[in-house]
Amino acid sequence: MTGHVTLIGGGPGPSDLITLRAARALNTADVVCYDRLGPTNDLPDLAPQAELIDVGKLPGHHRVPQDAINNLLITKARTGLHVARLKGGDPFVFGRGGEEINALTHAGIPVSIIPGITSAIAVPQSVGIPVTHRGISHAFTVLSGHNPPDNDQLHHLAHLNTTLIILMGMSTLATTVTGLLAHGMAPTTPTAIIERGFHTSQRTTRAPLDTLIEQAHLRRCTSPATIVIGDVVTALTDWVTTIDPPLLAPLTPPTPARGVA
Amino acid sequence: MTGHVTLIGGGPGPSDLITLRAARALNTADVVCYDRLGPTNDLPDLAPQAELIDVGKLPGHHRVPQDAINNLLITKARTGLHVARLKGGDPFVFGRGGEEINALTHAGIPVSIIPGITSAIAVPQSVGIPVTHRGISHAFTVLSGHNPPDNDQLHHLAHLNTTLIILMGMSTLATTVTGLLAHGMAPTTPTAIIERGFHTSQRTTRAPLDTLIEQAHLRRCTSPATIVIGDVVTALTDWVTTIDPPLLAPLTPPTPARGVA
Repeated sequence: MTGHVTLIGGGPGPSDLITLRAARALNTADVVCYDRLGPTNDLPDLAPQAELIDVGKLPGHHRVPQDAINNLLITKARTGLHVARLKGGDPFVFGRGGEEINALTHAGIPVSIIPGITSAIAVPQSVGIPVTHRGISHAFTVLSGHNPPDNDQLHHLAHLNTTLIILMGMSTLATTVTGLLAHGMAPTTPTAIIERGFHTSQRTTRAPLDTLIEQAHLRRCTSPATIVIGDVVTALTDWVTTIDPPLLAPLTPPTPARGVA
Repeated sequence: MTGHVTLIGGGPGPSDLITLRAARALNTADVVCYDRLGPTNDLPDLAPQAELIDVGKLPGHHRVPQDAINNLLITKARTGLHVARLKGGDPFVFGRGGEEINALTHAGIPVSIIPGITSAIAVPQSVGIPVTHRGISHAFTVLSGHNPPDNDQLHHLAHLNTTLIILMGMSTLATTVTGLLAHGMAPTTPTAIIERGFHTSQRTTRAPLDTLIEQAHLRRCTSPATIVIGDVVTALTDWVTTIDPPLLAPLTPPTPARGVA
């Protein structure tokens, strides 16, 4: 009998930011194929009976090709197993989840999906930046720096007057920022780079758009990072000062809201 | 001693699509202030020891004003209680979470936040529509129909060549679609309206952009609905036929997830 595959959104990192449905699926999985994002360190506890397969890298640090991942999922499912495919964030936000679904569907393997918390919203939130805020921004656009906006898109993004969020965008930061400025985005637009979201080494760099490249260089900002461009960056300034670095521990009473640097 | 407030993202509806962290916070809350979205029906189980306060409506079906909600949160927290403020989706995606944080912070009440699965991504996903898909769309924009795009924004959105997702957009659908077409968006652009996402009465209507208004009228589409405009709507057509209506049931019987009382 053919098994099945569950694509699971692993969220932005902490194991308690997966959904109850994801926890239950991992708990009953026979195999978990995971890569470098999501709650990978806690997998022995989350999926105690599963074979754990890291498809994020091969010896020599090459990434496993997508075709090989697809074939692994198909092969394992055909032996009758419940295969969990764990991805960081949400499977459909730059997760190549759709490609895996197409491959599995064409192979006749049943596949279902469980959404995850995307870093695009949760990482800015963790440092007090709301992607929307009444009177400031009623929309947001999420971009991938791996496929950065072309010249036409930069023009429209520069004038769209909404929040921009860029994932995987450090290597193309200079091109994107220069393009937005060249197309007329206000140089004073507030921005933030949040490196290593939800890790203990998380760090936030804030700057107006026209000094962002310089600041990122001075502070040696590196991937992984979430980049936010828009007036929402300064919407909750009073609160931000109390939670940057963010509340990494779940439900620990927060530090006092006032009078703390 | 002053209590504290936790803003909690309740996700798109099913109670097992909240995070483990959210479940733990609800389980220990003294008070839960909720409105009409999120896992409201399951609150007696999720928050067994809490006073449950519906701030979604007043007698006569008026909504509780935001100021009154803010004051309620402040008053309850000042008595030393742990107050959970449960919101549908994510607190920072059109959730007015930032406004509540500002009010609480200014009142000296500690406040923390737990992200939630946003309907903007999860509802399309539930019917097989990925908001991004390699080779089709590398970005997505989320809009609120309550504050629909103005003429300039419509122009830029029509040419941005990314996925558009509109929440709360049924009452302004005709204006938005007409505007996108007038500004040159391709009439054949695939679109979908997903009504009542994650409910048993969920229904999907698909149409090219230039017949969407007519189809919505013929099928009497109503709020709440998630609207998707872009080539991703047809990215996973083979899979869609297997899950529309979507997989509403959890993967396994709803036993409590580990680590959650």
